[in-house]
Amino acid sequence: MSKKATIYDIAKELKITAATVSRALNNNPKISKKTRELVHATAAKMNYKQNKLALALKSGKSKNVGVVVPFINKNFFASVIRGIEDELYPKGFHVIISQTHEDVDREKKIIQNLINAQVDGILISTSFTNENKEQLNQELKKSTPFIFFDRVLNFDGTSTVTIDDYQGGFDATEHLIYQGCKRIAHFYVDQNIELYNNRLNGYKDALLKHRIAYHSDYIISLTSDMEAGKEAAEKLMKLPVPPDAIFSSTDNGLLGAVKYLQSISVKIPEDFCVVGFSNEPFTQFLEPSISSVDQSPMEMGKMAAKVFLKQIENDESGIDENVVLPAKLIIRKSSSKQ
Amino acid sequence: MSKKATIYDIAKELKITAATVSRALNNNPKISKKTRELVHATAAKMNYKQNKLALALKSGKSKNVGVVVPFINKNFFASVIRGIEDELYPKGFHVIISQTHEDVDREKKIIQNLINAQVDGILISTSFTNENKEQLNQELKKSTPFIFFDRVLNFDGTSTVTIDDYQGGFDATEHLIYQGCKRIAHFYVDQNIELYNNRLNGYKDALLKHRIAYHSDYIISLTSDMEAGKEAAEKLMKLPVPPDAIFSSTDNGLLGAVKYLQSISVKIPEDFCVVGFSNEPFTQFLEPSISSVDQSPMEMGKMAAKVFLKQIENDESGIDENVVLPAKLIIRKSSSKQ
Repeated sequence: MSKKATIYDIAKELKITAATVSRALNNNPKISKKTRELVHATAAKMNYKQNKLALALKSGKSKNVGVVVPFINKNFFASVIRGIEDELYPKGFHVIISQTHEDVDREKKIIQNLINAQVDGILISTSFTNENKEQLNQELKKSTPFIFFDRVLNFDGTSTVTIDDYQGGFDATEHLIYQGCKRIAHFYVDQNIELYNNRLNGYKDALLKHRIAYHSDYIISLTSDMEAGKEAAEKLMKLPVPPDAIFSSTDNGLLGAVKYLQSISVKIPEDFCVVGFSNEPFTQFLEPSISSVDQSPMEMGKMAAKVFLKQIENDESGIDENVVLPAKLIIRKSSSKQ
Repeated sequence: MSKKATIYDIAKELKITAATVSRALNNNPKISKKTRELVHATAAKMNYKQNKLALALKSGKSKNVGVVVPFINKNFFASVIRGIEDELYPKGFHVIISQTHEDVDREKKIIQNLINAQVDGILISTSFTNENKEQLNQELKKSTPFIFFDRVLNFDGTSTVTIDDYQGGFDATEHLIYQGCKRIAHFYVDQNIELYNNRLNGYKDALLKHRIAYHSDYIISLTSDMEAGKEAAEKLMKLPVPPDAIFSSTDNGLLGAVKYLQSISVKIPEDFCVVGFSNEPFTQFLEPSISSVDQSPMEMGKMAAKVFLKQIENDESGIDENVVLPAKLIIRKSSSKQ
């Protein structure tokens, strides 16, 4: 690794003053064209780089945007990030990604670090909840634009982009009712995150509309992983009157349930229908393929980026926009009786 | 969003000079304890933050580490990143992630941006190849430690962490031979990336050791996606003498091949054995489960982080370490005839 050349090295090399080098590099018209070209050529030869960090410090613009998600390897978040990049990269922004592993202390440190690094904005799917959100609010008071997506919190001066989780839950449940299912269980992810409550409310209202009684036995709280889904399905099938369908807020949880049901020879969809949420890629290639609610992650990412761009154009005044994208039920074999 | 307080605001508030505020904030012993405490308390109350970027600029240490990968949503890369984070986070480093989408121009811009942002090091799985690597070399001449992992390039003063791809290819192929397979095809990913060549060479040498003739018809170049794998399997099965096994350098490609073979009622593993590479999570829960070579991504990430830490301890002198981790063949149903 060679040491970085400074303007002083260039000045020494060309036997001119550092001030002249600096002006030449900034294309100051007071410096002759010949000298400017010579300085630029020498700077290139000596591998000189203007300190962009110092420039950012002066201008207050880094052209970096921080994206913060719980996990980078969930297809949903990866696709949102892709959408953000597709929108911001052509406009000259660099997208730097951090993952929190759902650890709120780490999330706070990540946000502080991004603010310290003078990013132009933070696009975030938060792991903070309504219970502990005031901690985060302290950070939001700094003058960095915040756009929440998917897992959002409502603060003054910040924007949110979500999908219509309520409608997604409603549509998935009503679809199961139309398939003739009468005892529909629900996998609920208990993280005190608003979107899971919205999906649960959609489920409840679909039952209500079709005059189907709500049974709290059929609501299972779980984490979003395969093993938890297996245990949940086992618990459900041991009830005196087991359900004949599951609408799950998590595809990963549902995968475990499907594996369990298959292991005890329950036929899907003939005897039991299932619908998941997130439209993870594996739902397509399982046998049977799994119905799921698509969250339009690419569109969500693009929209979050657009809201950010709008916000920085408005400069100092925080705008407070709340965009809700539609949820799309994708019907596959796992819930197609006909 | 409130405006950031500066040392001048604090000075004004306390009716002291900005220089005194600055010294107090830096705990200069020349300032009385009482004044120091007052300044710190006022700074906290006024939401003042020392400009960490400016401090980084002074000290040359940002405590940020850039991680650059082709894709964040491949399980392999996500797990490597997890390993890096697990190693660096407890030591106070922030890991900021960027993805290149295998676009070398974008990769170059990302690296320039990270260098400009004064990261303490760059841990990278590159999309540059031996053909165009000189472009990247220009960037490496800057004084930022570089550690390559998985997709590596050999440059003076940079380190590499890889798995033994040759051994992985050899073991997978020899395992298929021991299962009684006689006509073993190979899916090769044609990206001019050394690791794919190493896997191919392992495959060739296993055939050679067991005196099995090498047929170029059985080598299919493809991209690492499901659709390409489907087409490749179709092509193989239309040969006058079709193969009875596939060792694939890509799990995703192999998934497409398995789906095709099942669609034409070829029984796996009875009539046809398959082994993939990467041990993607879906290989476990497919029916039949798919054998694959595990790349120990968590260990690779931890090792890359350790090499980075060693490098920054050595400060100016670039160390040039090449760590090779073992590849582990995981045998599942798809290649278990017995």
